[in-house]
Amino acid sequence: MVIKKLINEPDRVVRDMLEGMELAFPEIIRLDPQWNNVYRRYKKPSYKVALLSGGGSGHEPAFAGYVGYGMLDAVCAGHVYTAPTVPQIYTAIKEIATDAGVWVFFGNYTGDLMNFVPAVEMARREGIKIDYIAVNDDVAIPVKEKRRGTTIHILVHKIAGAAAEEGYSFEEIGRVARKVIENGRDIGVALTPSTMPTTGKPTFELPEDEIEFGIGVHGEPGIKRMKIVPSKELAKLMIDKIVEDLKLRKGDEIALIVQGTGGTPYMEKFIFYRDARKYVEEVLGLKVYVSWVGEFITSLDMQGGRIAILKLDDELKRLLVAPALTIAIRIPPPNVIS
Amino acid sequence: MVIKKLINEPDRVVRDMLEGMELAFPEIIRLDPQWNNVYRRYKKPSYKVALLSGGGSGHEPAFAGYVGYGMLDAVCAGHVYTAPTVPQIYTAIKEIATDAGVWVFFGNYTGDLMNFVPAVEMARREGIKIDYIAVNDDVAIPVKEKRRGTTIHILVHKIAGAAAEEGYSFEEIGRVARKVIENGRDIGVALTPSTMPTTGKPTFELPEDEIEFGIGVHGEPGIKRMKIVPSKELAKLMIDKIVEDLKLRKGDEIALIVQGTGGTPYMEKFIFYRDARKYVEEVLGLKVYVSWVGEFITSLDMQGGRIAILKLDDELKRLLVAPALTIAIRIPPPNVIS
Repeated sequence: MVIKKLINEPDRVVRDMLEGMELAFPEIIRLDPQWNNVYRRYKKPSYKVALLSGGGSGHEPAFAGYVGYGMLDAVCAGHVYTAPTVPQIYTAIKEIATDAGVWVFFGNYTGDLMNFVPAVEMARREGIKIDYIAVNDDVAIPVKEKRRGTTIHILVHKIAGAAAEEGYSFEEIGRVARKVIENGRDIGVALTPSTMPTTGKPTFELPEDEIEFGIGVHGEPGIKRMKIVPSKELAKLMIDKIVEDLKLRKGDEIALIVQGTGGTPYMEKFIFYRDARKYVEEVLGLKVYVSWVGEFITSLDMQGGRIAILKLDDELKRLLVAPALTIAIRIPPPNVIS
Repeated sequence: MVIKKLINEPDRVVRDMLEGMELAFPEIIRLDPQWNNVYRRYKKPSYKVALLSGGGSGHEPAFAGYVGYGMLDAVCAGHVYTAPTVPQIYTAIKEIATDAGVWVFFGNYTGDLMNFVPAVEMARREGIKIDYIAVNDDVAIPVKEKRRGTTIHILVHKIAGAAAEEGYSFEEIGRVARKVIENGRDIGVALTPSTMPTTGKPTFELPEDEIEFGIGVHGEPGIKRMKIVPSKELAKLMIDKIVEDLKLRKGDEIALIVQGTGGTPYMEKFIFYRDARKYVEEVLGLKVYVSWVGEFITSLDMQGGRIAILKLDDELKRLLVAPALTIAIRIPPPNVIS
């Protein structure tokens, strides 16, 4: 099969991509090419709790796009749709560890659990103050414990990252990260499968007129196959799933995250956002405190969309809009001095 | 044929998209839904030369994504791959015109010429100081006068927009816009065709192992069909075309713009950028003053890439990195006060 992509050797796609990110944003990230680990360009202050994440590649800008001020200290990039390795993760932990501790956030997938947990245990045995959370937010899976980590994983990076910059303690960062997971849900839909850059093959098949409702970020099956419906109906179906699970009520303040899945054009992302926004505000009476529209955790070239909602309180609101300087998220400080 | 997209009624895609953009960024743009014209949220100062652009939709973030401080005052969004209408353009000119004058920038396409030029003439006959430039930068076309407007069109918005904020006169803005076109070239490649949201049909056909070298932003044929080659070979072929036409020499300072065509995943955009960057620096000895990586003028869901180079002098360098606040381009001021 022909691999028709803007790549060189298929085995090198992750390395080549990370090199491109470092060449474009050398002031933000530093690549360790031996391990495909990405660090903040400058060593973080030693008093700050260090934050590490990572996972398989193909979800860009997740995760290397979130390394930098106000978010992560390091990311371990695995091969496409494949968890990083134990020695790779262990190396990153050692690089960023401080006396204040290290928090490790990854998605709730078997491969990530199998590699992140042993690396964390190895570091802990050496006396590093360290713990982890496997983010589980994909409402397509009925049982909470089995839910996959998707968009809320990124919001954990944003909010825990801001908390770490504010000087939150190790325990307080764990608390606020768990609060994000408790109050956030995500759901996706695939119009087309993603195509593996390593083989040129699609990760699954979809009939011409059908979509996969509740798709995972690696193309895992969701809730059901269904005929394509208009964007506004799809947005309603997806948001209803989230609202029911989160028990949202009229007047609740939320962050609304609407994104494409990697191959979705701008036009559709903004139409989908419009429909989601109008539904949550005009029909459900929710209050949108802040919106993110774009691409935050994708699935290679999959066409489709994801919607995530985070229910906010004052602490989450403050940390969500706090300053950040990463490749994918840039929020300048709102404070004024003159 | 099934239209498998995140849209509602196909005739409403542009309106729905613009509504989404306004809902997401109400502090930056204001939509006139009667005409699908997008304006800066606040009326610009009357001493500033006003800048107008527009064209067919499907090239997002072009062009509504470039309305705002430091770039455009208004954009007229046509239907998909279709020029805006004469009364639509005339309405926008009347809305933004000041005594300082109005510059109109559009791409060098028959449809745009047929509608922008009469609207400009109508306004001129009413005493408005106004002129236009049809941007022609696509090096895939041998004859300069016939070249299509692509990425350099966006750089004209950025640089002329910064010049207007700095208080450049009407004549000086024309001069600097022409300098951008004189010193900028673009070329594209398609791996897949784009699919019309109005019909669900691809705009052309490509064999499984072939790419279109020199593709236009509406899927117009380019220089040749060829077998897919690795990203670094493709980047070299494309850059060589630009370098030859621009007569670039070792040591020249440039802006390097590498982008996907709408359906290209992040991973490939960064790999393609890496290969372009390494070639211009390590092989050609050009100096990259600033890079843009992402999506700037796309072709719906087409998979592929475009590379553009702008040769810089001191004036272009200053204006290119000057502050801007639009949906797609945000550059804070570098100045310091404390």
